[in-house]
Amino acid sequence: MGAATDDKCVFCAIVQGIIPSHKVYETEQMLAFLDINPVSEGHTQVIPKYHAKTLVDLPDEYLAEVGLTLKKVALATGAEQFNVLQNNGKLAFQHVDHVHFHVVPKPSEKEGLVLTIDENWPARKADSKELEQTVARMKARLA
Amino acid sequence: MGAATDDKCVFCAIVQGIIPSHKVYETEQMLAFLDINPVSEGHTQVIPKYHAKTLVDLPDEYLAEVGLTLKKVALATGAEQFNVLQNNGKLAFQHVDHVHFHVVPKPSEKEGLVLTIDENWPARKADSKELEQTVARMKARLA
Ligand SMILES: [Zn+2]
Ligand SMILES: [Zn+2]
Repeated sequence: MGAATDDKCVFCAIVQGIIPSHKVYETEQMLAFLDINPVSEGHTQVIPKYHAKTLVDLPDEYLAEVGLTLKKVALATGAEQFNVLQNNGKLAFQHVDHVHFHVVPKPSEKEGLVLTIDENWPARKADSKELEQTVARMKARLA
Repeated sequence: MGAATDDKCVFCAIVQGIIPSHKVYETEQMLAFLDINPVSEGHTQVIPKYHAKTLVDLPDEYLAEVGLTLKKVALATGAEQFNVLQNNGKLAFQHVDHVHFHVVPKPSEKEGLVLTIDENWPARKADSKELEQTVARMKARLA
């Protein structure tokens, strides 16, 4: 679960102004600031002003602003092409345990998020029965 | 820009039920359904019921539901670790021109989104002056 603030969290320290940042956009619930190790110019972190590790720990009042804030930041970058990436858990490449969405402009093949479909996206065709079983399990979790 | 529906769009056809899908979750604004070429079990597409190519073309009433729907779907997958990826533009790996968020469980290193940080994430340390200039340009676009 989460709490408003975690004393050991670098993103909470940025929200509080204890660690300085280059702020792009801010609302009562959300903050967007530049990544200091950008993968392309304009690479921005969009975070809630609430310490939750993953998306499923985030209260609805923050979730409700996620999409709107991502759009604002995308417009701010001026990028025609861009990726949004949000990682949950260490195996899934999360390095700061405070929910964050990377907004990453994609100005060229070698800048921004670089994906080689065969290597990074191990897609396979699923059969219909398998998908039916999966969706039944998923719906049961929401019931 | 966008419109409610595009006759040539495969995701609009899924929203309308012209093409069948394995629906995980649905609201008045949003639809979540299984990817038929999953990169891991539970790989789900979250889309607005509105034809917009990219996030910046999407009306606020749909954006407002993005975060909430992503959380619901993440809970439905039952995954402890997962990635959310949203691609805008062909160079940025967008293959269907209707806004979609991939919710991708990450059960193991080789399943789901596979990133090798050096190869897929060309980060470099930016100096403070450079970041100040970038953020000034970004704020000007929002003003
Ligand atoms: Zn925090
Ligand atoms: Zn469409």
